[in-house]
Amino acid sequence: MRKYRLLLAVTLTALFSADLYFILLPKLRSAGEGSGRFCACRRRNNFSLTGQFSSWISFTLQDAGPSGLSNGGSKLDGLFAHPLYNIQNPTLGSEERLLQVEQLMDYYKKKVSRWERHKKLYNEAAAASNISVSEHQGAFDADASWLKFHSGISRHALYSRHDPAIAQLLLDMRDMTVVNADYTQDEKALKGACDCSQVVKPSGHHLKLALKMQNFGKAMFKPMRQQRDEETSEDIFYFVDVQRHNAEIAAFHLDRILDFRRVPPVVGRFLNLTGEVLQVTRNDDLRAVFFTSPANNTCFFAKCLYVCKTEYAVCGSPDLLEGSLSAYLPGLSIAPRISIPNPWIRSYTFTGQEEWQVNPAYCDTVKKLYPYSSGNRLLNIIDMSVFDFLMGNMDRHHYEIFTKFGDEGFLLHLDNARGFGKHSQDEMSILAPLSQCCMIKRSTLLRLQLLAQPQFRLSDVMRESLQKDPLQPILTEAHLSALDRRLLKLLRAVQRCMRKLGDGRVIANDFIRATVNPRASAESKKAR
Amino acid sequence: MRKYRLLLAVTLTALFSADLYFILLPKLRSAGEGSGRFCACRRRNNFSLTGQFSSWISFTLQDAGPSGLSNGGSKLDGLFAHPLYNIQNPTLGSEERLLQVEQLMDYYKKKVSRWERHKKLYNEAAAASNISVSEHQGAFDADASWLKFHSGISRHALYSRHDPAIAQLLLDMRDMTVVNADYTQDEKALKGACDCSQVVKPSGHHLKLALKMQNFGKAMFKPMRQQRDEETSEDIFYFVDVQRHNAEIAAFHLDRILDFRRVPPVVGRFLNLTGEVLQVTRNDDLRAVFFTSPANNTCFFAKCLYVCKTEYAVCGSPDLLEGSLSAYLPGLSIAPRISIPNPWIRSYTFTGQEEWQVNPAYCDTVKKLYPYSSGNRLLNIIDMSVFDFLMGNMDRHHYEIFTKFGDEGFLLHLDNARGFGKHSQDEMSILAPLSQCCMIKRSTLLRLQLLAQPQFRLSDVMRESLQKDPLQPILTEAHLSALDRRLLKLLRAVQRCMRKLGDGRVIANDFIRATVNPRASAESKKAR
Repeated sequence: MRKYRLLLAVTLTALFSADLYFILLPKLRSAGEGSGRFCACRRRNNFSLTGQFSSWISFTLQDAGPSGLSNGGSKLDGLFAHPLYNIQNPTLGSEERLLQVEQLMDYYKKKVSRWERHKKLYNEAAAASNISVSEHQGAFDADASWLKFHSGISRHALYSRHDPAIAQLLLDMRDMTVVNADYTQDEKALKGACDCSQVVKPSGHHLKLALKMQNFGKAMFKPMRQQRDEETSEDIFYFVDVQRHNAEIAAFHLDRILDFRRVPPVVGRFLNLTGEVLQVTRNDDLRAVFFTSPANNTCFFAKCLYVCKTEYAVCGSPDLLEGSLSAYLPGLSIAPRISIPNPWIRSYTFTGQEEWQVNPAYCDTVKKLYPYSSGNRLLNIIDMSVFDFLMGNMDRHHYEIFTKFGDEGFLLHLDNARGFGKHSQDEMSILAPLSQCCMIKRSTLLRLQLLAQPQFRLSDVMRESLQKDPLQPILTEAHLSALDRRLLKLLRAVQRCMRKLGDGRVIANDFIRATVNPRASAESKKAR
Repeated sequence: MRKYRLLLAVTLTALFSADLYFILLPKLRSAGEGSGRFCACRRRNNFSLTGQFSSWISFTLQDAGPSGLSNGGSKLDGLFAHPLYNIQNPTLGSEERLLQVEQLMDYYKKKVSRWERHKKLYNEAAAASNISVSEHQGAFDADASWLKFHSGISRHALYSRHDPAIAQLLLDMRDMTVVNADYTQDEKALKGACDCSQVVKPSGHHLKLALKMQNFGKAMFKPMRQQRDEETSEDIFYFVDVQRHNAEIAAFHLDRILDFRRVPPVVGRFLNLTGEVLQVTRNDDLRAVFFTSPANNTCFFAKCLYVCKTEYAVCGSPDLLEGSLSAYLPGLSIAPRISIPNPWIRSYTFTGQEEWQVNPAYCDTVKKLYPYSSGNRLLNIIDMSVFDFLMGNMDRHHYEIFTKFGDEGFLLHLDNARGFGKHSQDEMSILAPLSQCCMIKRSTLLRLQLLAQPQFRLSDVMRESLQKDPLQPILTEAHLSALDRRLLKLLRAVQRCMRKLGDGRVIANDFIRATVNPRASAESKKAR
């Protein structure tokens, strides 16, 4: 009961401020409508100028100026200091954490002993076959950052806003000794068979690697396949586009800036393909796809059952290859997840069209279907479409949730490497969940509006955030300014909905917990 | 007997001139050796300056100046007017022609009636399945340029130097209505199975098309896969490099400029993928790989049995796609050919090495082996390596000859699309046949020396020749100047051999016909 008090207070403040904001809108709109277009920027300026913006917004704007935002200070720090980014989550009950610390420790210990056993067996066999494997000692570390990341996963997000373990995890992934490299589980499931059940086969497979760090943390490595300034050809279907390591990195930063925190931490790293993959792997199949290129660089290629896709080889220079390292989520054995088809899935064929592409009333159908018929699942899907639209990611065929949190759990934003392909194109169809359902969470909308303001301009905070990555620059300026352009289009789409349906039906209050906690739900209803 | 008289006279003149040239060389060399390096340019300048060059060379040089070479006239015309390019071949006996006209006419008529039958059957089936096929009437034409090309193929070359049918054939391939499009025979043999017998699979397959023209001439279409200014990555093995349509075109011009005439005529063309392929094909498999890209361009992709290689799709803009059209040789049923592994074949694996790469005395072994032990087969291989070295083509695994001409026939220089990949690299190993055997035909050497002279500079005559192609520019300036640089390296390699073994053992007299015509052979020996 007590833990919800602060939450309620903050929510009420936010709702009150936002209501003011949205009540004022129609008046401004009617004044602005003479010109036929509504300008989100002008609207915001009007607010700050007339001083009628909500107390916390005006506080932040006043605060932002002197604190150095306008004279070259950190916009990102300013953003994260903003009240909207400091809505306190309630203290977490044990049921709202994905994992308990004791459970994780058990899991960790089992992991260590399994690894020691596997290593011993493999090393004996390797010695017999004259294969030399570099031996790096793994070390049990109860303070490991990945352990803290896993134990911090809650019903609300993958990590809390100011968790120092996340910064440490990024450092560890960047620097730690790699003790083992292997194919990822999904690669192993394919057993080298390229999936040709569809007309086309995504080419991203078979080059991802699972790396084990000295402290037994695991990360997925996606190698660089494309230069930063290469733009995906217009003729390429989204599902055969290459996977971009920098998109994976940028997506983590974007997700954090949107305050979703549904992407596992990602960092860039120069990997030594020889010393950190070839010489430490205990997988003979993986070792077999390594070769030395005519230019004497170390390379490895994707192997399918019937075709050896050397065309997809990636090469180091001579050994170093940049790539993205994404932190692994807890194993499925202790934290099972389910993968659910996106209701706005695209056809993975050349000509096929899905219902949502031809039926403008598609959302009405979805709304009637479980689990989209209650709770905030549909709003979460819309959040995801906002995220994907900003980075131009059309490849969101499935989403995952932790089974523990049931239907009210947040959606994981995994696998973002097909974002940031075309900076010159804004693929409006990605926004279909929002534009067809005409709904958006109030908290999401408020943050998007904040990021459209010069003081917190999305491109600026993204640039600043990405500068911390070892592989910076991560995005070209063209991609950064595309973010701002898309953000405006996104806000205009919301605006259109509000004009059509009225604010009340478009802006949805978050923190609805209807099916989970009757008490919270009742409080939430009161708040509305 | 009479027909060889002129040949003998010209040969003797050429030999006399060249002997002078080579007798003089050592003296110049000893003078030049002080600087440690031998400069081919300076050597040539010395010749023209001292006036000691052979009579026909000085004739040409004198002739070339006033005739406009130095004041912007056609270097290419000058080259083709040069005596070295006007050595008369003897009048051809019927046995020295690949095909007789009557035989060709029979073949042609059968072709026409087979096509009419096939078309009728297909159209009936298509009507039943609601497939619409554009109907273009094919027309029998006894004067067709492709027919003249086929009937002109002789023991000496694919075409004679000034045959007007070749120019006409290039025009016809460029302009004629396409009445049918299909996979090539080798694609059909694969039946969609990508060859994975080797570690790697060349990616050039499955995008070549066989086009039938209105007059029943056939041409092989290779689509553009790479921009002119893209350079093949240093990490790419030659056998997975893409096939370049412009290399195919440039190779034809280079081969003609070297006076080999062993490449079938090639011309560039903008093909309408919809109107000239999709709508005229009678192959349902081919029709099935066509699709419309997200940018609304017409594309088609390579299909393998288990993997659909959409990554290799090529797209028109929206329908037009440039490519090379290579004239077909006469069908194997009337002009059988055999395909023979190149003795200097490369390993088509990542690490394999062939004997020639590790054994410097490899040529001694080859020389003892039939058919390289007699006649001019080995010299022909060396000619081929000269051709391949100039364009940087490492992918010469086999060569073909017409069985009719037996071991003395010329080698066909087919499939040159992997040339002109890297302008900044001169792959000396391609010259191994020459540098290991230390032999070269006198006629080849003389022409190479001519092409190293400013008046006939290889890059200039190539640029001029390629300007006639509809898709010009065919080669970037970087590739053109690479030709000059490689030519000098080539001449230096010959020079090294002569220093080591003496001119007599390096320069081989051509027109040796030991096993075919004892009389000519005797005359040739006399000439030596």
